[in-house]
Amino acid sequence: MIDLVFAHPYPQRSRANRSLLDAVRDLPEVHVRSLYDLYPDFAIDVEVEQEALNNARIVVWQNPLYWYSVPPLLKLWFDKVLAYGWAYGEGEQALRGKVCQWVTTAGGDPATWRPQGQHGRAFEHFVAPIEQTAHFCGMRWESPLVVLGSHRISTGELREAGHDYRERLLALIARESGEPRHA
Amino acid sequence: MIDLVFAHPYPQRSRANRSLLDAVRDLPEVHVRSLYDLYPDFAIDVEVEQEALNNARIVVWQNPLYWYSVPPLLKLWFDKVLAYGWAYGEGEQALRGKVCQWVTTAGGDPATWRPQGQHGRAFEHFVAPIEQTAHFCGMRWESPLVVLGSHRISTGELREAGHDYRERLLALIARESGEPRHA
Repeated sequence: MIDLVFAHPYPQRSRANRSLLDAVRDLPEVHVRSLYDLYPDFAIDVEVEQEALNNARIVVWQNPLYWYSVPPLLKLWFDKVLAYGWAYGEGEQALRGKVCQWVTTAGGDPATWRPQGQHGRAFEHFVAPIEQTAHFCGMRWESPLVVLGSHRISTGELREAGHDYRERLLALIARESGEPRHA
Repeated sequence: MIDLVFAHPYPQRSRANRSLLDAVRDLPEVHVRSLYDLYPDFAIDVEVEQEALNNARIVVWQNPLYWYSVPPLLKLWFDKVLAYGWAYGEGEQALRGKVCQWVTTAGGDPATWRPQGQHGRAFEHFVAPIEQTAHFCGMRWESPLVVLGSHRISTGELREAGHDYRERLLALIARESGEPRHA
């Protein structure tokens, strides 16, 4: 089972993230939890979220990148759900060994993500906080799926990215179930 | 004037951040905005926050580091207050030329912040999202003031860190006012 934690503050205004989500949400293994729909008041139900994680072998975090990081409600989700004594620290580490796949979209075409570009460095330099959050919980971090230039991306490129996303999840599902893959 | 944006989700439980804040809050130039006291419901008053920034030459962001990033309410503050058309993009860049000083505390003593340590890399590798947020708004980024091992830090070390913080702000005030410093 895949626990797909989706965090877009304005899902109706989203083009790229909605398209990506639509490319994978029909997979039977995928259970989407749309945080901004579930918790518009920021009152996250920690037990329910932890239960969803307990049932999953693969965890996906999908969000648009705002100010080089995750939206506030996903940050709150990290802070509340990945709790001391549950996800790390004394006692069992509930997420140990699970796979973590980050999927994100960012404005600015690839040329802006370099030292002389508008974003000052390669996208990879902004990954550390998310990656280390997963590592600290003992999760197995997959290479992120990143869609740059999401504001102006063509419908064709977006479809291609959605296809990659779906293929990625199918490959993870096959790998984690230990069975040969039937795409 | 210094707009000191303070974001601690549990100010009553804070030892290190409260001590640091107490070391500077009496400076006449410092105006503290404690986000979790002002906006417990996450309903940030964007106009008020932007006005406070307009009045400042120096902006301080002070927070404990949670999951290698800022607390959710400060992230929301970034997303709402540093708005398109005000902080960046078309129109004036309201924060251009202002000084940005990040002050943060993190658990784990310095030895845990390295490739073989619990946090997987040096602290510097987690700074990029915050630094680039300031850069993107045209702010002048100061080297962050970071207190590691904040959970177990001694009272003496904490007092020392508070002293450094106060000296840092006094130096910035003197520099930005263009007057010789009288500490």
